[in-house]
Amino acid sequence: MTPLVPIGIVTCSDRASAGIYRDEGGPAIEAYIGRVLVSPWTPHRVLIPDDRETIGRTLSGLVDDVGCALVFTTGGTGPSPRDVTPEATADICDRLLPGFGEAMRLASLAEVPTAILSRQIAGLRRAALIVNLPGRPAAIATCLNAVFSAIPYCIELAGGPSIATDPTQCRAFRPGGG
Amino acid sequence: MTPLVPIGIVTCSDRASAGIYRDEGGPAIEAYIGRVLVSPWTPHRVLIPDDRETIGRTLSGLVDDVGCALVFTTGGTGPSPRDVTPEATADICDRLLPGFGEAMRLASLAEVPTAILSRQIAGLRRAALIVNLPGRPAAIATCLNAVFSAIPYCIELAGGPSIATDPTQCRAFRPGGG
Amino acid sequence: MTPLVPIGIVTCSDRASAGIYRDEGGPAIEAYIGRVLVSPWTPHRVLIPDDRETIGRTLSGLVDDVGCALVFTTGGTGPSPRDVTPEATADICDRLLPGFGEAMRLASLAEVPTAILSRQIAGLRRAALIVNLPGRPAAIATCLNAVFSAIPYCIELAGGPSIATDPTQCRAFRPGGG
Repeated sequence: MTPLVPIGIVTCSDRASAGIYRDEGGPAIEAYIGRVLVSPWTPHRVLIPDDRETIGRTLSGLVDDVGCALVFTTGGTGPSPRDVTPEATADICDRLLPGFGEAMRLASLAEVPTAILSRQIAGLRRAALIVNLPGRPAAIATCLNAVFSAIPYCIELAGGPSIATDPTQCRAFRPGGG
Repeated sequence: MTPLVPIGIVTCSDRASAGIYRDEGGPAIEAYIGRVLVSPWTPHRVLIPDDRETIGRTLSGLVDDVGCALVFTTGGTGPSPRDVTPEATADICDRLLPGFGEAMRLASLAEVPTAILSRQIAGLRRAALIVNLPGRPAAIATCLNAVFSAIPYCIELAGGPSIATDPTQCRAFRPGGG
Repeated sequence: MTPLVPIGIVTCSDRASAGIYRDEGGPAIEAYIGRVLVSPWTPHRVLIPDDRETIGRTLSGLVDDVGCALVFTTGGTGPSPRDVTPEATADICDRLLPGFGEAMRLASLAEVPTAILSRQIAGLRRAALIVNLPGRPAAIATCLNAVFSAIPYCIELAGGPSIATDPTQCRAFRPGGG
């Protein structure tokens, strides 16, 4: 039986966590995953302020305690003084995967020149993949389209569970496979 | 009234600072900014040798003491043993913006395959943006064309002053704006 | 007389070093260099397990003791727990050249979306250039095609020997030269 895979979705935003405005990034990520994945999964949504220590503790808890094989963050990747999501992510990852940030910025750069301001990264904490995404739903979709097809293979290589995509939405790629 | 924004232009070159050859990078950057900006600014030009400690102290002085919101360096980003500008820049920045280096190398790579040898970076020291540029005027223009439209928004997000561009020369981009 | 340049070729693979399967990466790199270079060179081939300390010691020995001006690794750059070649390379380099990894991932991304999973880097140990390559021969060729034309100039700038390419196979580029 295919196991249920917990996936973390972490919105990092002082204003959304204070109720000043609505979190749009978290729901956009959840909807995207729901459209793309066909294997069983369950979302773990968290909404926290832009605090490096809080973000780091939340991410490591989602991996270590909840057992998430995959965690997305949204928000906090820009040049504003309060943007600390990449630092918090690097703090708790064992290894970084620079190709994710490069590919997401490159895809975003085809749409907006300010894509170069994103400091988003991705990395592994043991067998779990953590990927920083931007805050705006349109930018989230651009970034996920750029990297999602490599994610199932990445998690398998890292020692995590298998996840399966709907090939009409996203063709999960495995070299030598299909 | 729009405030006068000081902009640092730092040429890092043993030979130019020793008078062995003429600094071409500094004047090229100053001319580029003069063509692109319409808000009031004033250049702070410095010519120093390729010494890591000197470069770091110069950059931090331009930000902390002179109040520069933006500093460009030229020279010292390659693989030669004396090339230490990226190290000196990283030394005094609070946070790095990897998208600048990626975008500048990508734009340069369309012109010369040796673009991959540039180790140029960009980062923030508090609210000031520091960007490494190459030494040759043609390569400087390629790099500035690749990133300048994102710079005004970057400085605003970081907490710095507003700078305005001539839209016929460079359209400063702000997401959701224009 | 043109000096004989030693070039290191290091296969990092638990399974190939244990004889479980045949090393295909090392021979592919040696064949590529043999086709491209016209100046005298001699290969130093090593086959070692995916152990960070062993890889680091091997790379520094090839540079410091054997006198290699150029060292390629193959294997160990992905997200698997045993993949540690980039870490071992960073351990023994004085300076990194991020443009190599970016350009190799970009070229590979045009072929497979999983190119973003490669964590390959390049760097300098004194005047020697060390470049991580993937494990599969097809991916090796893609990466070498993306960067080889910048390698002779890189080694010269770093203070190493001159190497010459067959211009019908790879045009070594020197800015302002040809």
